[in-house]
Amino acid sequence: MRLPSSRELALELGVARNTIVAVTDDLVAEGVLEARARAGTFVARSVAPLLSESRTPASAGPEFDLRPGRPEAGSFLTARWLTAIRRAGAAAADVDSDGAGSVALRSELASYLARARGVETTADAIVICAGYRTASTLVAAALAAGGASSVAIEDPSLFGIERPWSTSGFTVSDLVVDEDGADLGRLDARTDAVVLTPSHQFPLGGALAPARRRLVVDWAMANDRGFIVEDDYDGEFRFDRRPVAALQRSAPERVVYAGSVSKTLAPDLRLGWLALPRDLVRPVVEASEALTGGAPMLNQLALADLIRTGEYERHIRRQRREYARRRTHLQQALRSVGLEVPGLAAGLHGLIPLGDAAPTVLSRLESQPDHVGVHRLARYTRSHDRPEALVVGFATPSRARFEPAIEALTSLLTARDSRPPR
Amino acid sequence: MRLPSSRELALELGVARNTIVAVTDDLVAEGVLEARARAGTFVARSVAPLLSESRTPASAGPEFDLRPGRPEAGSFLTARWLTAIRRAGAAAADVDSDGAGSVALRSELASYLARARGVETTADAIVICAGYRTASTLVAAALAAGGASSVAIEDPSLFGIERPWSTSGFTVSDLVVDEDGADLGRLDARTDAVVLTPSHQFPLGGALAPARRRLVVDWAMANDRGFIVEDDYDGEFRFDRRPVAALQRSAPERVVYAGSVSKTLAPDLRLGWLALPRDLVRPVVEASEALTGGAPMLNQLALADLIRTGEYERHIRRQRREYARRRTHLQQALRSVGLEVPGLAAGLHGLIPLGDAAPTVLSRLESQPDHVGVHRLARYTRSHDRPEALVVGFATPSRARFEPAIEALTSLLTARDSRPPR
Repeated sequence: MRLPSSRELALELGVARNTIVAVTDDLVAEGVLEARARAGTFVARSVAPLLSESRTPASAGPEFDLRPGRPEAGSFLTARWLTAIRRAGAAAADVDSDGAGSVALRSELASYLARARGVETTADAIVICAGYRTASTLVAAALAAGGASSVAIEDPSLFGIERPWSTSGFTVSDLVVDEDGADLGRLDARTDAVVLTPSHQFPLGGALAPARRRLVVDWAMANDRGFIVEDDYDGEFRFDRRPVAALQRSAPERVVYAGSVSKTLAPDLRLGWLALPRDLVRPVVEASEALTGGAPMLNQLALADLIRTGEYERHIRRQRREYARRRTHLQQALRSVGLEVPGLAAGLHGLIPLGDAAPTVLSRLESQPDHVGVHRLARYTRSHDRPEALVVGFATPSRARFEPAIEALTSLLTARDSRPPR
Repeated sequence: MRLPSSRELALELGVARNTIVAVTDDLVAEGVLEARARAGTFVARSVAPLLSESRTPASAGPEFDLRPGRPEAGSFLTARWLTAIRRAGAAAADVDSDGAGSVALRSELASYLARARGVETTADAIVICAGYRTASTLVAAALAAGGASSVAIEDPSLFGIERPWSTSGFTVSDLVVDEDGADLGRLDARTDAVVLTPSHQFPLGGALAPARRRLVVDWAMANDRGFIVEDDYDGEFRFDRRPVAALQRSAPERVVYAGSVSKTLAPDLRLGWLALPRDLVRPVVEASEALTGGAPMLNQLALADLIRTGEYERHIRRQRREYARRRTHLQQALRSVGLEVPGLAAGLHGLIPLGDAAPTVLSRLESQPDHVGVHRLARYTRSHDRPEALVVGFATPSRARFEPAIEALTSLLTARDSRPPR
């Protein structure tokens, strides 16, 4: 692969041409680039394979990884991220940040969240943190410092997400989820906070019904200690119609809105944000300063760069098309063996009820743990058992591996020694 | 800057060309773009400065920054970090990690910590986390899960470091610090954990006396619930003799050793580690998975790369020479105005007792908060008042700004309207 000329690179990266020439010389010396007389500068043959798409992962993990929770990985993304990090590093003298994180990133996020999710916020109501787990730890500690002690959390929900709350001394109660989302019937004035996934319930997949959205907002407004924590973990990905706007815009002073790059870029980046009611900004910043110390600054600046240049949203649009294609493929493949998958209107995972085939399918999964990776629904339930089902993520496999993965999944679900599922 | 053609934009963004034309017309009408006949569409001159690279930092901060807690920043370091990140990105297919972090980084750290600090550990007893604040949050939660509820912490100590413990439900008691380090006289079997800075007390600057090191290890060994948390925040920087080895090696199964890159590279990287007693590995990993989700993977791989190639230790050696030079300069400058600075045998900060000059010096500092940035010792005390003193960091200013900063400090300490300090 031939590199652009030093003049073009200098223009594109916004650095002096001398710098480009010096860096190129270094990389030639390190063997990463090759200078060929009168032809230009090329990526060295020994390095090129590292940049190609077709690497096999060194760490074990299942042959077909359909575990939920991860977006598609790709060297395209890595390359863009590295470019953004480099640009952020070059501009790092301009860092303007405080206990809430980079001001540049918070400004970009305020307008991005308004555009993409209808969130009503400003840069000074946003706090940057290291992903949703850390966000929960900070919000729980901030609310506990204000005297709150009781939280209601969906059951089923993200594995272990009650722990940040119990660590801060909260009593955790369950909101059982049905086809309209969390059952809010037992919410009362003794509950201080409610944790919800209103746009796309995790892991069941439905959306919180409009009547329940109104109900929970009314509860929070009537109850001046009441806060709703909205985990908008995959709100960018909706396939059947325009995204459901965030619940946050119905009550910006009662809803703590939490988002991250975990589903849009990669969970390994550990980068997320909170858009907060004004009263909670100071307590959450204090919790962040004392309990975690915030997120790495270069990563924050790199994300600000990706949003500012439009690359973040272009990437999301491209991925939305790819995931929509995968979702249709998954739906058709399962329909062809007599299975309907609920909860596929949005997001990167679906739920496959196992019915009478459960014992056969589960024993087959257990006997070949390295073949097809999926999660049992039971992993996500706390106290309310549900019929056996699989939570299947369709985002993780590479494009070349996706269809074979779905084929492996369907043959696992329908192999001859199993009774057909209802 | 010229925009791509409407045809190119339509392709790139995946929207109809009519939409591009309509939006472009709108932006021209709003004055954001300019259409120039036969030349194309350009970013309006009035907007362009917003996009340029040469912004001046928006955040003020003091003219001479002598606040403790940060190492020297430098573009050299940024460049090396970016190179390491790029190499890590190129090799990212090889990621081998689990809930404790990158296996590659943990292996490098196990041997680095043995070489540099005498720590006795292995890769599988190390957990990577996002700096010391997060480390404290995880250790407190893990010990609380095992039934611990009482912690003793040095007074004075790092601002707010009791909060991770109180959040997890611990009762916090104070260990008053004297010239031999923390006074351990009141430790008993009801105390579950002790948090110490044995190599270089923060912020007073002494080392824990050998008799007290033995005392606290005996306490932990005699008391099978007793754990010592060793905050080795600047153990790499000792100027008067070889570094005091970590307390951890005296009792690897009773000491939680915590370190980070905050003083060696930069606190903004939010990257640290715990070397743990075997019994605590599983509880700390579980706390990390539930409460924070770990540290960004590329950053972990970049640090592994810097340690493996020897660059990390070369950087520390270079910085040790630079800080030794600064420490001598600071000592001489203050001696020349009749001041002795204790606690300068190690680390990146010193303590300047103010004596009778306190009221004058403090009012001068308050009247010019943007001139010389230092911290009052009172910032770090919890319940035991001490004579007024300044905690002065000498690592942060650039090489060119260091001597002017010390000059500004000494003239602030000795200006004519102040009574000379004792």
